Amino acid sequence: MSVVQLSPRVQALYDALVAFVEDECIPAEAEYREALGTGAQRWAAVPPVMERLKARARALGLWNLFLPREHAEGGGLSNYEYAVLSEVMGRSLAIAPEACNCSAPDTGNMEVLAKFGTAAQKKQWLEPLLAGTIRSAFAMTEPGVASSDATNICARIERRDGGFVVSGRKWWISGAGHPRCAVFLVMGRSGPGAASGSSNNRHQQQSIVIVPADAPGVTVGRPLTVFGYDDAPHGHCEVAFDNVWVPAENMVLGEGRGFEVIQGRLGPGRIHHCMRALGVGERALELAVARVQQRTTFGRKIADHGVVLDYIAKSRMDLEAARMLVLRAADMIDRVGAKHALKEIAMAKVVVPAAVLAVIDRAIQLFGAAGVGPDTPLAELWAGVRTLRIADGPDEVHARQIAQLEIRHQNARRRQRQTQIQGQAAQPKL
Amino acid sequence: MSVVQLSPRVQALYDALVAFVEDECIPAEAEYREALGTGAQRWAAVPPVMERLKARARALGLWNLFLPREHAEGGGLSNYEYAVLSEVMGRSLAIAPEACNCSAPDTGNMEVLAKFGTAAQKKQWLEPLLAGTIRSAFAMTEPGVASSDATNICARIERRDGGFVVSGRKWWISGAGHPRCAVFLVMGRSGPGAASGSSNNRHQQQSIVIVPADAPGVTVGRPLTVFGYDDAPHGHCEVAFDNVWVPAENMVLGEGRGFEVIQGRLGPGRIHHCMRALGVGERALELAVARVQQRTTFGRKIADHGVVLDYIAKSRMDLEAARMLVLRAADMIDRVGAKHALKEIAMAKVVVPAAVLAVIDRAIQLFGAAGVGPDTPLAELWAGVRTLRIADGPDEVHARQIAQLEIRHQNARRRQRQTQIQGQAAQPKL
Amino acid sequence: MSVVQLSPRVQALYDALVAFVEDECIPAEAEYREALGTGAQRWAAVPPVMERLKARARALGLWNLFLPREHAEGGGLSNYEYAVLSEVMGRSLAIAPEACNCSAPDTGNMEVLAKFGTAAQKKQWLEPLLAGTIRSAFAMTEPGVASSDATNICARIERRDGGFVVSGRKWWISGAGHPRCAVFLVMGRSGPGAASGSSNNRHQQQSIVIVPADAPGVTVGRPLTVFGYDDAPHGHCEVAFDNVWVPAENMVLGEGRGFEVIQGRLGPGRIHHCMRALGVGERALELAVARVQQRTTFGRKIADHGVVLDYIAKSRMDLEAARMLVLRAADMIDRVGAKHALKEIAMAKVVVPAAVLAVIDRAIQLFGAAGVGPDTPLAELWAGVRTLRIADGPDEVHARQIAQLEIRHQNARRRQRQTQIQGQAAQPKL
Amino acid sequence: MSVVQLSPRVQALYDALVAFVEDECIPAEAEYREALGTGAQRWAAVPPVMERLKARARALGLWNLFLPREHAEGGGLSNYEYAVLSEVMGRSLAIAPEACNCSAPDTGNMEVLAKFGTAAQKKQWLEPLLAGTIRSAFAMTEPGVASSDATNICARIERRDGGFVVSGRKWWISGAGHPRCAVFLVMGRSGPGAASGSSNNRHQQQSIVIVPADAPGVTVGRPLTVFGYDDAPHGHCEVAFDNVWVPAENMVLGEGRGFEVIQGRLGPGRIHHCMRALGVGERALELAVARVQQRTTFGRKIADHGVVLDYIAKSRMDLEAARMLVLRAADMIDRVGAKHALKEIAMAKVVVPAAVLAVIDRAIQLFGAAGVGPDTPLAELWAGVRTLRIADGPDEVHARQIAQLEIRHQNARRRQRQTQIQGQAAQPKL
Repeated sequence: MSVVQLSPRVQALYDALVAFVEDECIPAEAEYREALGTGAQRWAAVPPVMERLKARARALGLWNLFLPREHAEGGGLSNYEYAVLSEVMGRSLAIAPEACNCSAPDTGNMEVLAKFGTAAQKKQWLEPLLAGTIRSAFAMTEPGVASSDATNICARIERRDGGFVVSGRKWWISGAGHPRCAVFLVMGRSGPGAASGSSNNRHQQQSIVIVPADAPGVTVGRPLTVFGYDDAPHGHCEVAFDNVWVPAENMVLGEGRGFEVIQGRLGPGRIHHCMRALGVGERALELAVARVQQRTTFGRKIADHGVVLDYIAKSRMDLEAARMLVLRAADMIDRVGAKHALKEIAMAKVVVPAAVLAVIDRAIQLFGAAGVGPDTPLAELWAGVRTLRIADGPDEVHARQIAQLEIRHQNARRRQRQTQIQGQAAQPKL
Repeated sequence: MSVVQLSPRVQALYDALVAFVEDECIPAEAEYREALGTGAQRWAAVPPVMERLKARARALGLWNLFLPREHAEGGGLSNYEYAVLSEVMGRSLAIAPEACNCSAPDTGNMEVLAKFGTAAQKKQWLEPLLAGTIRSAFAMTEPGVASSDATNICARIERRDGGFVVSGRKWWISGAGHPRCAVFLVMGRSGPGAASGSSNNRHQQQSIVIVPADAPGVTVGRPLTVFGYDDAPHGHCEVAFDNVWVPAENMVLGEGRGFEVIQGRLGPGRIHHCMRALGVGERALELAVARVQQRTTFGRKIADHGVVLDYIAKSRMDLEAARMLVLRAADMIDRVGAKHALKEIAMAKVVVPAAVLAVIDRAIQLFGAAGVGPDTPLAELWAGVRTLRIADGPDEVHARQIAQLEIRHQNARRRQRQTQIQGQAAQPKL
Repeated sequence: MSVVQLSPRVQALYDALVAFVEDECIPAEAEYREALGTGAQRWAAVPPVMERLKARARALGLWNLFLPREHAEGGGLSNYEYAVLSEVMGRSLAIAPEACNCSAPDTGNMEVLAKFGTAAQKKQWLEPLLAGTIRSAFAMTEPGVASSDATNICARIERRDGGFVVSGRKWWISGAGHPRCAVFLVMGRSGPGAASGSSNNRHQQQSIVIVPADAPGVTVGRPLTVFGYDDAPHGHCEVAFDNVWVPAENMVLGEGRGFEVIQGRLGPGRIHHCMRALGVGERALELAVARVQQRTTFGRKIADHGVVLDYIAKSRMDLEAARMLVLRAADMIDRVGAKHALKEIAMAKVVVPAAVLAVIDRAIQLFGAAGVGPDTPLAELWAGVRTLRIADGPDEVHARQIAQLEIRHQNARRRQRQTQIQGQAAQPKL
Repeated sequence: MSVVQLSPRVQALYDALVAFVEDECIPAEAEYREALGTGAQRWAAVPPVMERLKARARALGLWNLFLPREHAEGGGLSNYEYAVLSEVMGRSLAIAPEACNCSAPDTGNMEVLAKFGTAAQKKQWLEPLLAGTIRSAFAMTEPGVASSDATNICARIERRDGGFVVSGRKWWISGAGHPRCAVFLVMGRSGPGAASGSSNNRHQQQSIVIVPADAPGVTVGRPLTVFGYDDAPHGHCEVAFDNVWVPAENMVLGEGRGFEVIQGRLGPGRIHHCMRALGVGERALELAVARVQQRTTFGRKIADHGVVLDYIAKSRMDLEAARMLVLRAADMIDRVGAKHALKEIAMAKVVVPAAVLAVIDRAIQLFGAAGVGPDTPLAELWAGVRTLRIADGPDEVHARQIAQLEIRHQNARRRQRQTQIQGQAAQPKL
């Protein structure tokens, strides 16, 4: 499955997780969807089957696996190891990540609190998140603003009355609709120079504060649909912060350090998204492979039409190449840190969604009308993966970054070789 | 706009239609969507704005334009001319086609009745359809069957009690959910040899009968979603026909002639779908062009990032090439008939949706999160166009047909040239 | 074959040309290639078969067809009509265009002389070119300069001794190697402000002069290869102009008017290139269709492998869509002039080579090793078409222009509709 | 650079090889090309610089690195380790592999002899090959035969006079033109049932024999060009075997075991080709990155045009994903053997050439005319890599195999899980 061999302990986790996902999560998907119901009901409660599966995952030791090795509460896994497990969870995207308390955006938020939180912040928010009794959201994207360049963010976080007042409108806040969503990490401009937006400190103007969901002035608005899906019960909502006061100790890491926080949060988080997406792609390919062996057109089993074999081969190649890129990025994070794996992370971020979308699209085509409708998971999975080409920065921004890092890297390499060669030339030849 | 010049009369229709769509239909889209409401309400009534616009279109002479020139009631337009107008309607896909009484599946059904219907069938069904007082559906696709090969269709149409009894389950029946859907054209197997499915008469086993929507035994079931969208109020529904009796005079054209009927219906109909889809693509490109001039990232207007210009150029090229293919197919139908334009129709059918999907996808990318959500029409339009790669036969089946026609054509051409050359060789050279 | 019907006269030309190309040019290709020989011999003489076919084409009235209707000596064809014929010549790219005296770069040069030449220039150079007794070259591209932006061109054309002195180095000068190449049109900077390159008159600094090939100081250097092919006997050569003096009357149109000249030259010329390339694509597809019916792998005729049918269908669609774009651009030039067809010409310029390359590439793949080697024309044709993505400006520059024209067009259209609407609003409603 | 860390010994080899390739091979390319000359001279002698670099590589311990660890004479490297080094050699494709005695087809032939050769065969042929004093060729592909299905091969190897008589015509025999090519491994049909070609033993009819290049009846014919390149001095030639007698002991492994031999030969060999191709891609990307920082168009450095950054990013992603696939396949061969890595090898075989061709194609586009000509290595490298989509089986055959292996794998996996689940179900729940 992977170039780097798994340790016996991780292999055991992997096997347990595969069994849990295949035998318990996937079979529970229909019940879960059924229990969600329609209309307002969809946001009112979590289907009971989810609580049952959470308990089960916990009992199996498949809980909080995401938390990196330096935090004792978590799985103690390397990014590489967790990536491998993450893909398995992605095979039952609606169920498994939440059942294992490994679903976005909570994982990122928990990492932020574990890494940067004060003892009090950890006590109040990290502990119930790790226990799976509350959920959380990350409020960054704003309507009317090109958020792909995060210096454009313009919610305000201002000192007042011994604390901070948060004001602004956010949207696409994933998880905000969840009945248990208890806390927001909110990004906004703060500090004296914030208003001016002068370019020399554009990366020191953003801060992140903790805002309880029940603080006066917080209003969770309409859930936005992704294509036509509402992704209840967590959803992607509009959230208004109207003069919301929080105590000073709710600041994370310090004023003006918002970029530091999100950079720590986004790197490994992107890997997780990518690996889950690969699990989605594997599921789609499996469905397609099963389908084409069942039906007949024009006197041949569908699987005997050459173009169908070509689709399957392309999908397998797309998934395999994409997976290797993610595993390599994960391995780089483990070995040299996310800061030195920026290019590798960005490549995975761009390549994986494109690959998985192509795989699902081919599967849809092989299913015909059933592929775009509600009786296979394909269309909904496609819609979910489509957002990954935009979320956390659109493809185009990441591609630009990859190219700039490549140019810088090659220039440095050329200079270095020239220095070496000149050094050699300067030595007397004996 | 087109290689073939429009006549003054059609140019006037074109100008009137452009003004109607731009100034009345597109501005009414929000009101229409609003009026649709939520839940069961969405299927209960047509938003009043639609009736208002239907009256308006009729007053402007923009009514039933689709009906080919041999039918006096219609626009008397050639396929080429109607194709050009069809694209304009596609710019406001949710409103304009229905407002002009030119929306699928009614256009195809009206064509069938106009072409093959008896006087009584025309009186009872064609007249109210042309008047826009009722709507209709075409019931062909079946669950559990590879309908891309229509010989697989297995609903039964059996003679009984001086009429026919229709039994079977259909799905993806577009328009079946509409509050005014009054009639179905149903395809099924009929005649003595139908059950055996012997291969020598596989194309003479299907028949099409007219089934009133209120006939006992007709049950319209759940509306299927397309990437989460229900497409209310017309929808795509499951429909059960449980021993539905209809009088013998409801048979269309004659038993076993179903393939003749759908072939007449599908050819020009595909052109209409394609041209409407191009209108969708134009709308998406316009939205994108407007968008990229409004926002700034990384110190530049989005439109100044080279990759954005590249997207716009690609989209313009995709649309232009696809449009030319459709216009050529339309022109071929006009000049030599749909039967001799099979390859051209199939090419348009394959190329157009792919082109338009690419255009919308790029627009989504330029809009970021707003592109996948409910505040731009992009995601819903994408979902609608995506079905065109499957509806009326998936891409793969059409590609296969194109290749086979190409091989046949080249072989014939080679044989013909050889005959010519041999003929020349046989002549005495003087 | 085309949306616009051909007139009886042009249809007759078309039929005669098809017969000439299929029955005389294609069969002569092997003899021609053989006669070219190897080494220096390849540049020494034109194979006799070419003179024979030139006489034949002239006798058949298939001579100078390219010359637009305003010049009596030529075919008197519209751009659309010539485009259709051009494709036929492209089917035997090495033979037919030259045999019909319709090959680049002579056609463009003859157009320049016909359009802008003085009576003396026409007498001296246009007449023998039209008679096919001499050939010509166009010397614009320079080594070490990004010639895709023609303002970068830096050869000098300076007044001296009652004439001009031309100095500079050019490369990729197609046709310069031809044993009969008698004249160059040379582009260079001239006039007082030329040296400064100040930006306000960057488009008035280039001039074009006529330089006889035997003028002292003209040196034709090595022929450059295109993917290993030397394209003898015409070739693409380095040419040095070392203080070459020409009389003042050799200036074309006037000093500083070089951009005017090349713009007139390039528009329709691009259409010709594109249509010839489509002829190349058709030839490749025909070869592939014949091939796949002859061989067997894994127990099936190659044509029965589904992916092969998919290739053929894709190639047919690629060619058809590309052809329609070119014909439309040709038609636009005829109806509104090349200046108002810039976007359409640029689109054809980008889309056609990509389409034809894809078609040849698939054909190569179906031929296996024979496809990349010397025993089919595929590899050489591919190499030739590949240069079209660069020649006369790379794809990327044309795409940029398409996007900018699109944005401008949409902005104008929006402003115009707003003015209309405001106009209507301002009128008193009676 | 790679997920699996290199051992200190291999890292040292890697560093030495990088220095050798960058500082000695690449700078020697121009001299090598120059020395090759023109015409017949190109096949007469190896440029002296090659012998100098071979001596140098040997002195540096960079010799025969390809030979797997079980053969003492070689580098003793794993497939993974050699793959990493192979890429470095690919950076100077014309020089480095031959300088290090690691070039195809000799590596494959040496592996065959090392693995399957008798002591006498090793003595006579393997030793001088390992010493780099002779070269060799592998004669399999035949004109007029769909060799992608090797059961179609029809040269004959018949017992006569205590040995074998070889008769047949081969083409595309790489290395046959080399002045030192001393030996051929020839594939052909042999044994009593060979003529009938009955299907039940189609994979036991092919044999491989050793044929000295100077055996009477061996004629090396014209070198075939790849696109326009002759790849002198090794070349790809037609070779005729006219009743060539060889002693019985020249049979490799045994009559009818030809498929066994080529399967052992092709697996790891494909990985080597792929990795060298990646080195080619890296070289092309480097050239492009340097180029775009040097030139200016339309008032901006080329590297500042967004589409250029997009090209660079795409090229980096293509190379990275492709490399990871090859390394994974290499690792699989090391761990489970080539037989169990068929799918992984086939994926690398398909993905790598496509990726590298795209990278070179973008580089060509960024170089403009220089990119298709003789002054950059790009066009020649493109032509060389293009053959990899055909050599050792075309993409389409490998894709078909990938899909069939995938279907088989998924079916096995499903059956296995069902067995497990049934097994669990059968256990009493306590």
